[in-house]
Amino acid sequence: MANSDPLLLRNARLPDGRHADVLAVEGRIERIAPDIGAPERCIVMDAAGGLVLPGMVDGHLHLDKTLYGDPWMPHPAEPDRDSRIRVERELRKHYDRSVEERAYGLVRHAAALGTCAMRTHVDIDTEIGLANLHAVLAVREKSRHLVDMQIVAFPQSGVVRSPGVAALLDAAIGDGADLIGGIDPIGFDGDLAGQFDTLFDIADRRNVGVDVHLHESGPTGLRELAALANRTKAAGMQGRVTASHAFCLGNCRPVALQRMGELLVGAGVSVATHGGGASPLPPVKALRAMGVTVFAGSDNIRDAWSPFGDGDMLERAMLMAWRSGFRTDEDLGVAFDLVSGAGAAVLTFADHGIAEGGRADFFTVQAETLAQAVVDRPRRSLVVKAGRIVARDGAPTAD
Amino acid sequence: MANSDPLLLRNARLPDGRHADVLAVEGRIERIAPDIGAPERCIVMDAAGGLVLPGMVDGHLHLDKTLYGDPWMPHPAEPDRDSRIRVERELRKHYDRSVEERAYGLVRHAAALGTCAMRTHVDIDTEIGLANLHAVLAVREKSRHLVDMQIVAFPQSGVVRSPGVAALLDAAIGDGADLIGGIDPIGFDGDLAGQFDTLFDIADRRNVGVDVHLHESGPTGLRELAALANRTKAAGMQGRVTASHAFCLGNCRPVALQRMGELLVGAGVSVATHGGGASPLPPVKALRAMGVTVFAGSDNIRDAWSPFGDGDMLERAMLMAWRSGFRTDEDLGVAFDLVSGAGAAVLTFADHGIAEGGRADFFTVQAETLAQAVVDRPRRSLVVKAGRIVARDGAPTAD
Repeated sequence: MANSDPLLLRNARLPDGRHADVLAVEGRIERIAPDIGAPERCIVMDAAGGLVLPGMVDGHLHLDKTLYGDPWMPHPAEPDRDSRIRVERELRKHYDRSVEERAYGLVRHAAALGTCAMRTHVDIDTEIGLANLHAVLAVREKSRHLVDMQIVAFPQSGVVRSPGVAALLDAAIGDGADLIGGIDPIGFDGDLAGQFDTLFDIADRRNVGVDVHLHESGPTGLRELAALANRTKAAGMQGRVTASHAFCLGNCRPVALQRMGELLVGAGVSVATHGGGASPLPPVKALRAMGVTVFAGSDNIRDAWSPFGDGDMLERAMLMAWRSGFRTDEDLGVAFDLVSGAGAAVLTFADHGIAEGGRADFFTVQAETLAQAVVDRPRRSLVVKAGRIVARDGAPTAD
Repeated sequence: MANSDPLLLRNARLPDGRHADVLAVEGRIERIAPDIGAPERCIVMDAAGGLVLPGMVDGHLHLDKTLYGDPWMPHPAEPDRDSRIRVERELRKHYDRSVEERAYGLVRHAAALGTCAMRTHVDIDTEIGLANLHAVLAVREKSRHLVDMQIVAFPQSGVVRSPGVAALLDAAIGDGADLIGGIDPIGFDGDLAGQFDTLFDIADRRNVGVDVHLHESGPTGLRELAALANRTKAAGMQGRVTASHAFCLGNCRPVALQRMGELLVGAGVSVATHGGGASPLPPVKALRAMGVTVFAGSDNIRDAWSPFGDGDMLERAMLMAWRSGFRTDEDLGVAFDLVSGAGAAVLTFADHGIAEGGRADFFTVQAETLAQAVVDRPRRSLVVKAGRIVARDGAPTAD
């Protein structure tokens, strides 16, 4: 199929319930209307009344860590963050496949499930240096036809406590990473001001965003989050900073939540979540009602941190909804927004959505409504990226 | 296929990792060994190295409420228990299909996903009387080849607050229900002693078990749960009483949990859970370590109470594991036990498991280990109930 062949999707159901054809030309949705005439050399697909939904956005994952597609590895059972970091540093020396192979395998799989964009964190430490980053940069090149990818230079082993990492983070941006990452500046790095000085200094000089893992709950987490928001505002970086996880928002008192929500809105800091699992889940609806942008990601996918997951963002929407007590169609629509529109906004992935002029990134499922798609997570009949078919019935088409 | 034809499953992987054939004769596993010779008139199936797992047990669901298989119904969005009960009583008058049709459809679907036994609650109130019970009793008869079924006479609209329900519960047992149900005796019925007097009086006279919905968290829930345990002990009903949900165990202090755990063990009261979702989840491992039997069920499946679910107990195991923070193979095995062995024990569903002499209730999946099966929830290649094939590739075979 030539890159420029138009694609006409016939007999689709739009998220708003209307039935229409969708015509994609040169990577964009040119027209949405009933009974569109097929242009010359057009590929015509029949959606058979299936629902067409915008491509999904995985806003937080760790491509370089995954063992997805490898033989089953029992989880190494380390009980806390510090021991998991230590054990992973040992385990990763013996992984059978390269970072590039593992990461690309997962990208292909995720794309076949309807993911059209992702933000991946990539480990940077003094042992591996920028090796994982370079592998994931290569994967990004190789998978440009499948997903748009943002890369966060992630100091998994700390910044202040790991001399040399600051320079590596800076070099990572030079080599092509899009954002500077961070991790628990008090609880793990032991120096709130020190870590944030480093991150925001690089972000300022390099003109990139920041995305910090904040796992601490309770007062420590709230203090870290408030500091992140205040730094963001002081640096004039509104809209370019994310707090990942922010478990502290999941079990704080309403007054603290309200105060923190206002702070996050004022600073334009977004919140990324994988749904909490056993951890306290930030209250999605309350935060959204205050104006905080919340978006979702897979986080760890079958790696030394978690045995779960396969990158299916429609399943992530279900998990988020189930864990949040969402029941109504409206709330289930919010769950879908977490894995699509909200993430696209944070990743500044413009023109996302099923609309004329929008990117031709979409997938079809047999479901009557968006709510049902979230609950059922049906097989992805057809996945289209930039106007090209990249997967059918859940399996990637040939590259 | 005649009922008495033996079934030989070749080339299977057992839960403990060994490779073997499994021979089922007259509803029982007669032999597990490598290279079993096929007896006469034997049906031979190739598991292709797939994992064979014991049939699963759905320990808590509501067959009569489900709309599974109907067109999508947006959730009616009622915010609390009282309003949901009220709205459901109105909605159910207008359901398109009969209780029998809906319930049987779900049983077939669940059986095709590997469920071999279930405990269903059935609404009993002054408006519908025993109509739903009679419908589900008919479904039980009709699906004897698919699942073993226990029926709980469930007073969804209360006991003390609904004059006439006590007599209906008693009549329900007379008509074939197996257990007496109850619901939030303080929080909903407003009379702890009154409701339990009624339930335990019927249970004693009729010689049946008790399974009470306890949704309250906090001190009210703990008070109800303690009263249930004390009543059970006083009535000499150890091993025959279940607390369903018991959200109060999910957010109480360690001291209260310890005390309550000891009380439950002493009274032989088991705990049924659907995994909590947004509600506090009883700490599965801590309770099991104390000796409390915890087992799992789907609870509401696409009905006026919840839009989620389809009766897949392997997915329930994943949800339980994810929500509980289980990661190791051992813990993922616990999650599977919640949906199989633990439930079988509570339902006194004897000889459950992949062992010679055990019931020939099992299913196969393509997975290397039990842990991976929980995480991946692969398609059920083959489902066998009482030695007969009832489903292939997730779809029921002809009845």
